[in-house]
Amino acid sequence: MNIAYENLKDRYRLLSNLNGAGSILYMDSMVVMKPGSEADRSEQSMALATAAQKLLTHPEVGDWLDEAEESASALSPADQTNLRLMRRQWISYTAIPETLVRESARLGIEGNNLHTKHRDKGDWNVMRPIYEAAFNTQREIGEILKGALGFATTYEALLDQFSPGLKLSTVEREFAKLEQALPGMIAEATRLQKDAGQVIPLPEVPLAILQVIGNKMLLDMGFDDNRGILYVGDMHPLSGGTPDDSRLTTRYNPKDPLDGLYTVAHECGHSLYEQGTPAAWRYQPAGHSMGMDVHESQSMIMELQACRTPEFMEHLAKEFSAHIQNPAFSAENIAKALFRVEPSFIRIHADELTYPLHIILRFNLERDIIAGKLSVADLPDAWNAGMDKSFGIIPAGPTQGHMQDVHWPTLSVGYFPAYTLGAMGAAQFFAAAVKAHPEIRDELRHGQFKTLRRWLEINVHSKGSLLTQDELFTAATGEPLNAKYFMNSLSRRYLGRDYTA
Amino acid sequence: MNIAYENLKDRYRLLSNLNGAGSILYMDSMVVMKPGSEADRSEQSMALATAAQKLLTHPEVGDWLDEAEESASALSPADQTNLRLMRRQWISYTAIPETLVRESARLGIEGNNLHTKHRDKGDWNVMRPIYEAAFNTQREIGEILKGALGFATTYEALLDQFSPGLKLSTVEREFAKLEQALPGMIAEATRLQKDAGQVIPLPEVPLAILQVIGNKMLLDMGFDDNRGILYVGDMHPLSGGTPDDSRLTTRYNPKDPLDGLYTVAHECGHSLYEQGTPAAWRYQPAGHSMGMDVHESQSMIMELQACRTPEFMEHLAKEFSAHIQNPAFSAENIAKALFRVEPSFIRIHADELTYPLHIILRFNLERDIIAGKLSVADLPDAWNAGMDKSFGIIPAGPTQGHMQDVHWPTLSVGYFPAYTLGAMGAAQFFAAAVKAHPEIRDELRHGQFKTLRRWLEINVHSKGSLLTQDELFTAATGEPLNAKYFMNSLSRRYLGRDYTA
Repeated sequence: MNIAYENLKDRYRLLSNLNGAGSILYMDSMVVMKPGSEADRSEQSMALATAAQKLLTHPEVGDWLDEAEESASALSPADQTNLRLMRRQWISYTAIPETLVRESARLGIEGNNLHTKHRDKGDWNVMRPIYEAAFNTQREIGEILKGALGFATTYEALLDQFSPGLKLSTVEREFAKLEQALPGMIAEATRLQKDAGQVIPLPEVPLAILQVIGNKMLLDMGFDDNRGILYVGDMHPLSGGTPDDSRLTTRYNPKDPLDGLYTVAHECGHSLYEQGTPAAWRYQPAGHSMGMDVHESQSMIMELQACRTPEFMEHLAKEFSAHIQNPAFSAENIAKALFRVEPSFIRIHADELTYPLHIILRFNLERDIIAGKLSVADLPDAWNAGMDKSFGIIPAGPTQGHMQDVHWPTLSVGYFPAYTLGAMGAAQFFAAAVKAHPEIRDELRHGQFKTLRRWLEINVHSKGSLLTQDELFTAATGEPLNAKYFMNSLSRRYLGRDYTA
Repeated sequence: MNIAYENLKDRYRLLSNLNGAGSILYMDSMVVMKPGSEADRSEQSMALATAAQKLLTHPEVGDWLDEAEESASALSPADQTNLRLMRRQWISYTAIPETLVRESARLGIEGNNLHTKHRDKGDWNVMRPIYEAAFNTQREIGEILKGALGFATTYEALLDQFSPGLKLSTVEREFAKLEQALPGMIAEATRLQKDAGQVIPLPEVPLAILQVIGNKMLLDMGFDDNRGILYVGDMHPLSGGTPDDSRLTTRYNPKDPLDGLYTVAHECGHSLYEQGTPAAWRYQPAGHSMGMDVHESQSMIMELQACRTPEFMEHLAKEFSAHIQNPAFSAENIAKALFRVEPSFIRIHADELTYPLHIILRFNLERDIIAGKLSVADLPDAWNAGMDKSFGIIPAGPTQGHMQDVHWPTLSVGYFPAYTLGAMGAAQFFAAAVKAHPEIRDELRHGQFKTLRRWLEINVHSKGSLLTQDELFTAATGEPLNAKYFMNSLSRRYLGRDYTA
């Protein structure tokens, strides 16, 4: 028995549970907690992070790692992977000085508060210093991680923080394809859409009916509600918690009946991933879900793939019709309502076809700022130029423009690509699943997800972090993550034909 | 500047926040969490406790304490108190071996599960081993603490865990008075009650009305609902959280309209104490609320004193009558309903006059078991003998008898006295407050608590742990904690006259 490795497992289990505690508290703060408790909750989050930092960077952990690695060959391959992940996490933690960790946490809280206060006013002069501090701090962190873990560039180190194993070259290569193809596709889709005629407006659907449909959908997808909770409220949709205590939120709007239900699909996809991570590796680095790129693929495979198939929309039309008789509730009309394309300023309200260009704009800008090729002072102009180039529209001010997202002021530099990579991954996984099990489409026609869910469990969820991102996609789909299936999905959906480059 | 002391303040602040996180998670587990997440939550609680243990027992903390104490004379008196409390906590933590801490935590969880499963079946053979393990473990812990902190007896060390500074001699002396006086008072009260005639049964009050009355009461008492939450559900009533995120629960029963409202009063008393602890000492040992004896005095001053004055009952009668016209809603009839005396088996349903004898029974038994004078095997017989002596009734089995409470199987040995000390303290504080501010009674007639709340804030809440228990009572009321005011309150209420020994 490798005693050093057993000690490591104990220590990483402890860390995992401190993070789990933090995650439940975060969900509570978004859903339950009162505003007057914010400072108190920040203290708790900081305490959890500090405790984890102190317990992981304790000298004994370095000794255990050295010792465990010496006799690593006697460990099972999976344990060897687990040990490698431990070392990697340890390097990240020990490489960054505690003062920088603290400063980064402090800035994140300050940035979040300032964003909440000033976004709608669009006062860039007030916000610029926090953007500058955020980018400078992340550049500093990225440089340290680049040195410690050997990334090609500082920005790749930042990408890896959110999506471990994601290569900058993958992002650049696949985004280039999208950047090239999408403007033409958007133009064509807009024309086709005009010809197809108006959407019949969906009638108002009472909250109680939306809740019945949403709850059923959640359970049909396979959400285990004995170890998880769906909150309904008016908060920004999110999911979190732990694999065995998975929490998600939705907000239903009677006037926009699809919105809250597709939020359930999205957040439930995240939860299913967490609930399906391997129990045998619970609380170990190898047992955790992967980065945000894979996580978003799991939310989007539900929201953008399974639930936007003609078959599922047929089911959904029946669900609505069981409560309310209205000609708007046909699969075709729901598809029309869901698939409207229109260039717009705000990322989170963008449709599926224009969305990637919002992401690519942010990716280009943040990569250039980190590389020192663009200054934060020049961000507003660069943003507007990018919007003009992608969509031919220019925002009237920062609120509709470069100040709309919370990511940069909260130091989430390197996060944005995960959204579009998630959409790509979702299309790729869904194509592979349907190819292996064509009956998935028939099940969706009856609102059932069993075979799809099972495929995801076997090929994605149960893998935890035992595979690299490349290995995961290759084992599940036969090829590494790429844009082909996403483009095909978009092309069929919006242009009515397979994609041709 | 005393750098070692500043380091200590940082470390204890961290600990306080880890505990705060644990406290919010505990409330969540009782109110929100699903059953399938229990094991996960236990892991988190253990992780928080382990992290706190490791961070407090780190050798640097001992060094800081030594160093800070060397130049303690330069600190303010309050900082000196804070430093003394730090040392005390450090001794408790370092004296008990980690294996024993773990075993004790593990046993507590197992005991809780077994209790939940087997109490109603009353299967003593299944439960006896966990009772034995619990008492043995607590005896071991008590012996270690007795040696490390210098208590007179092992049991006093256990009392001190829940009610710091509480002397065994105080408990024995004051309980002896109650033990002597109560049986006669109960007999007399029972006779008087017969003569006074029947209570007019209270009508059913819809949940929505109870909620309106309860919420108003909560705010009238001064609960700051911008940093705290009242949950309404069917859980066992409790309060917890942190001073700046105080959470309490109640369950309303339309068929027993007083129950849920007096639960609000009780739990709100706890919350007001936490919310009133000194912000200047937030997260420091000196800033925390005191032990359970003082805490219960703050819940009971609301539930048993303020809200059971004739003046407040007059107000409450008006509150009900505003919604429902019924002759049962008079101050006199509400008093009759609240003040019914009847010897019974179950502590948590016992009335105010018989309740102390339930506590004294448990106190005598647990003290004797810890002292080795009584074996756990003999507990059932000793229990039944005690019930017979106090009330002349013998339970039909363990469910109604020695297995009814969760305390012992969860290692809470030394906790019970706090309930009756709390009732004593509540009466003593209330008498002092009303003596200083006779207008308190007039305010209660209008459902107002301002002056009482202010007196409690100044004399109890804002003191945090800056005073010892003796100093606190003496400063606020002119004498140490004693049974006199409680006996007087009982005597006036149930016998219609001042208490005479």
